[in-house]
Amino acid sequence: MSPSLSRNEILTTFTIFGAGVAIIANTFQGDGNPIIASLAFSGVAFSSTYCLIRWLGGAFMKAGFKGKDMSKLRKVEIPETMGAVCAVVYLLVIIVFIPFPFYKDIVAATSGGGNRDFVLEAQQVETGRFLHRFPHNKLAAYLSAILSLQSVVILGLGDDLFDIRWRHKVLIPAFASIPILIVYFVDFGVTQIVIPTPLRPYLGELFNLGWLYYAYMAAFAIFCPNSINILAGINGIEVTQSIVIASLILVNDLLYLAPFTPHPHPAEDAHLFSIYLLLPFLGVSLALWCHNWYPAKVFVGDTYCYFAGMVFAVDGILGHFSKTLWLLFIPQVFNFIYSAPQLFGLVPCPRHRLPHFNARTGLMEASVASFERPLRRPIQEAMKLLHKLSLLDVKTNKEGVVVECSNFTLINLWLVWFGPMREDRLAMGLVAMQIACGVAGLFVRHRLALLIFTADNL
Amino acid sequence: MSPSLSRNEILTTFTIFGAGVAIIANTFQGDGNPIIASLAFSGVAFSSTYCLIRWLGGAFMKAGFKGKDMSKLRKVEIPETMGAVCAVVYLLVIIVFIPFPFYKDIVAATSGGGNRDFVLEAQQVETGRFLHRFPHNKLAAYLSAILSLQSVVILGLGDDLFDIRWRHKVLIPAFASIPILIVYFVDFGVTQIVIPTPLRPYLGELFNLGWLYYAYMAAFAIFCPNSINILAGINGIEVTQSIVIASLILVNDLLYLAPFTPHPHPAEDAHLFSIYLLLPFLGVSLALWCHNWYPAKVFVGDTYCYFAGMVFAVDGILGHFSKTLWLLFIPQVFNFIYSAPQLFGLVPCPRHRLPHFNARTGLMEASVASFERPLRRPIQEAMKLLHKLSLLDVKTNKEGVVVECSNFTLINLWLVWFGPMREDRLAMGLVAMQIACGVAGLFVRHRLALLIFTADNL
Repeated sequence: MSPSLSRNEILTTFTIFGAGVAIIANTFQGDGNPIIASLAFSGVAFSSTYCLIRWLGGAFMKAGFKGKDMSKLRKVEIPETMGAVCAVVYLLVIIVFIPFPFYKDIVAATSGGGNRDFVLEAQQVETGRFLHRFPHNKLAAYLSAILSLQSVVILGLGDDLFDIRWRHKVLIPAFASIPILIVYFVDFGVTQIVIPTPLRPYLGELFNLGWLYYAYMAAFAIFCPNSINILAGINGIEVTQSIVIASLILVNDLLYLAPFTPHPHPAEDAHLFSIYLLLPFLGVSLALWCHNWYPAKVFVGDTYCYFAGMVFAVDGILGHFSKTLWLLFIPQVFNFIYSAPQLFGLVPCPRHRLPHFNARTGLMEASVASFERPLRRPIQEAMKLLHKLSLLDVKTNKEGVVVECSNFTLINLWLVWFGPMREDRLAMGLVAMQIACGVAGLFVRHRLALLIFTADNL
Repeated sequence: MSPSLSRNEILTTFTIFGAGVAIIANTFQGDGNPIIASLAFSGVAFSSTYCLIRWLGGAFMKAGFKGKDMSKLRKVEIPETMGAVCAVVYLLVIIVFIPFPFYKDIVAATSGGGNRDFVLEAQQVETGRFLHRFPHNKLAAYLSAILSLQSVVILGLGDDLFDIRWRHKVLIPAFASIPILIVYFVDFGVTQIVIPTPLRPYLGELFNLGWLYYAYMAAFAIFCPNSINILAGINGIEVTQSIVIASLILVNDLLYLAPFTPHPHPAEDAHLFSIYLLLPFLGVSLALWCHNWYPAKVFVGDTYCYFAGMVFAVDGILGHFSKTLWLLFIPQVFNFIYSAPQLFGLVPCPRHRLPHFNARTGLMEASVASFERPLRRPIQEAMKLLHKLSLLDVKTNKEGVVVECSNFTLINLWLVWFGPMREDRLAMGLVAMQIACGVAGLFVRHRLALLIFTADNL
C-alpha cells in the first residue's frame, strides 16, 4: 500500500471533505437541519479516514501493529489495527456534532464559581421545538454513548497491544458498557417492558424487570461486539457485515421518520438519535472497507470489531429497539450458537479456526479440527447427526469413530455447503446472507409484530 | 520489580480495597454522603492501581513499553507508560461514581421507542436538595469532563506508541479539550467575566468575552498538560508535582465547604465537583508514586502527564477557578517561559535536556548545550545578563564568546543554584518549591484578591 494518494483519490477525498465542511458551515447558521449536518459530517469522516489510513499505515507497522495475510500466495506484512483510526475519527466527529441537535437557546448566565458578584436571572427563551431538533435533556444519554464508545476503544487498543486471553477479552464490552448503563440508571431508569398480548392476563400490561433489565442490556452490549469479533478472519468480512447491519438499522430508523408515518411519532427522537450515531459510522467504515476488502491492504484489528459492535449496542439500548436489533444479528447469533461446542470445550478447538488457504488452487477450504483421542460417544453421535443435517463435515475412520470435523464457524459451514471458493466470493456470499436475513428480520418486525403486540409504531 | 506483591503489600492493599467497597456499599443505601463515597472510591482506586502496576509491568515490557533509566549506574530496562494504568482505573472509578452525586428521584416512565403502548406521566418527585447532592443538570458537565479525559488518554497512548513530533504533540490536549468546550457551549455558554474594580468605569461590571472565552479555555487546557510534560525527566517529578497541585486545589475547595464559610455558598457545587474529580486522582497517583519515586521501578509515560494536566484543566474550567489554578502552576509557568528560548529555537536545543548523571559521584549535574558556531550578539549578551542574575550558567572562551550554557529548564537551574545532588534530593527540592509557591498563591488569592474585586467568595 503506497502512503501517497493517487491524483484521483486526492480529487475525490478533498472534494468530499470540502463539500462536507461547506455544508456544515452553512447548517450552523440559523436553524439548520441536523440530519443534513450529520450527512456532511459523515462525508468529512469518510474522506479523513480514507487519507489517514493511507498516511498512518507506515507508522502503525513501525509501532508493531502488523500482520501477515495467511490466505494469500505472497505473504507480505500489512498494517494491523487500522480500525483504531476509524474509531478516533468517528469519536471526534460525533463530539463536534453535539451542538447541532442539542443546542438550547437558554441563557443561564452566571459568572460561575470564581467571583460571582452578579447572578443574572436565567431567561428561559424556549423557542418552539423543531422537527429533527432533540430535546436538550437527552444530551446526557448522547454523551454516555460516546463515553461507552471511547471506553471500548481504550480497552480494544489494550487487547490489540497486550494479547489478552480469550476469557478476559469477552468482558471488554462489559466494562465499556458501564457508562451507558450508569447514565441510564441515573438519567432515565425505566426498567418496565411491554408484555405481549397473549401473556397479559397473567403478567399485566407492563412488567418491571428491575435490575434484570440492566443485566439484559449488559448482555446485549457484550454480545454485539463479541459476535462481530468471532464472525471474522477473512478479508473484509468484519467491515462489510458492520456496514450491512448499520444500513439496515438506518432503513428501520427511516421508517419512523418517513412522510407516510403519522407525525410526531413518539419514537422519533430515539430514531433520530440512532441516525446521528450511524451516519458517521458508515462514513468511517466505508473508508476502511476500501482498504480492507479483498485483497486487503490493511487489517481492521479487534479494536474495530469491538467498536462497531458497541456502536450497535449503544444504538439499540438508547434507541430502545434492542429487540429489533437481534433480528439484524441473525447470522451472528447463529454463528455464536454454532461455535458454542468449540468455545465451551465440548469439541477440541484448534488455535485458529480460519478457513484454510489452498495455495495450489488459490481457493479457501473449510478448516478442520482433528482428534487424536476419540471423543465421548454422545458427542460423536451429535456430530454425525449434524453431518446428516448438512450442518457439519465429519470424517470417520473404518471403525466409525469421528477423527476429524470442519471447525464450528459459519464461514467454514458456508465452505462445506458451497465447496472451496475464492476469498472474496466467500465474503460476498456471507454478506448476501446477512442482507437477506436482515431484510426478512425487518419484515417480521413490522408486519408480524402486531400478532403479539397491540400496536406497531408504524 | 517483582510482579508478585509482598505479604505486607497484599495485606495493606486488600484491606484498603475491602474497606472502600464496604463503605461504598453502605453509602449507596439511603441518602449517603457522596464525599464519603468519593473517599472510599479513592481507596479502591489506590489499591487497584498499586496491584495492577505490579501485575502488568511484564505485559507492558513485552508490548514494547520499556525504557532504560539513564540516571542510574545499573541501566536496567523498566516498564514505561504505566500512567495508562492509572488513567484507566481512574476513568472506571469516576464513571462508576456517577450515581452518587447525580441520582435524581424522578420517575420518568416510558417503555421507550420499541413498543410504546403506554406512556406514563412523568411524576416529578422532587425531594428537597441535600447538601453534597448535585443538581442533576450538571450531569452533562461531569460527563463532558470524563469525555475529555478519555480523549486525552487515547491520544496520549497514541503519542507513547507512535513517537509523535513535538509540534504535533502540543496539540493533543487541544483535541482532548473539544468535548468539554462543546458541552460548555451547548449546556452552559456563559462567556462573561467579572471586571476588576479599577477597570469598571471603562468596561462595566461584566464583560462578554464571546469566542475569546473559548480560546482562553482551550489555551488553558493546552497549557496544563504540556507544562507538566516539560517539567519532567527525573524519577518521581511528574507524579509528585501532580500530587502537590491536586492537594492544593483540594485545600482551596475545602475552604468553600468548611463550617466557617457562610452556607449555602454559590460556588459550593463547583467545588464539590472539583473534589469528586480530585480524590480518585490522588488515589491512583499515590499508587503510581510508590513505584515511580527514586529509585524508579516504572516510568509514567507521556500519557500520565497529559492525563494529570487534563484533570486539572477540566477541574479549573468546569469549576470556574482557572484564575486560581494559574497560581498553583507558578513553577510550571516559570519553567515554560524559561524554556522558551530553547523551545522556539533562539538558542540551540539538544535532543535531551535532562540533567546529566555523573557516574563517578552518583550525583545529577546541570546538562549543557554547546555551540559550535558563535550565537548572535544580542542573544549572547542576554545570556551573560541571565548569568549575572544567577538564572543561567554560561561558559565563555578567552575571546568572551559564549560556547556553552546550562539547558533552559527549571531542573537544570536548580542544579546551577544548589550544585550537584542526588536525584531524589533534586526532586524533593523542586517539590518543596512547588508547595511553597502554591501556598503563597492561595494566600494571594484569598487575602489580596479583595484589592481588585468587590467580593471574595469566602
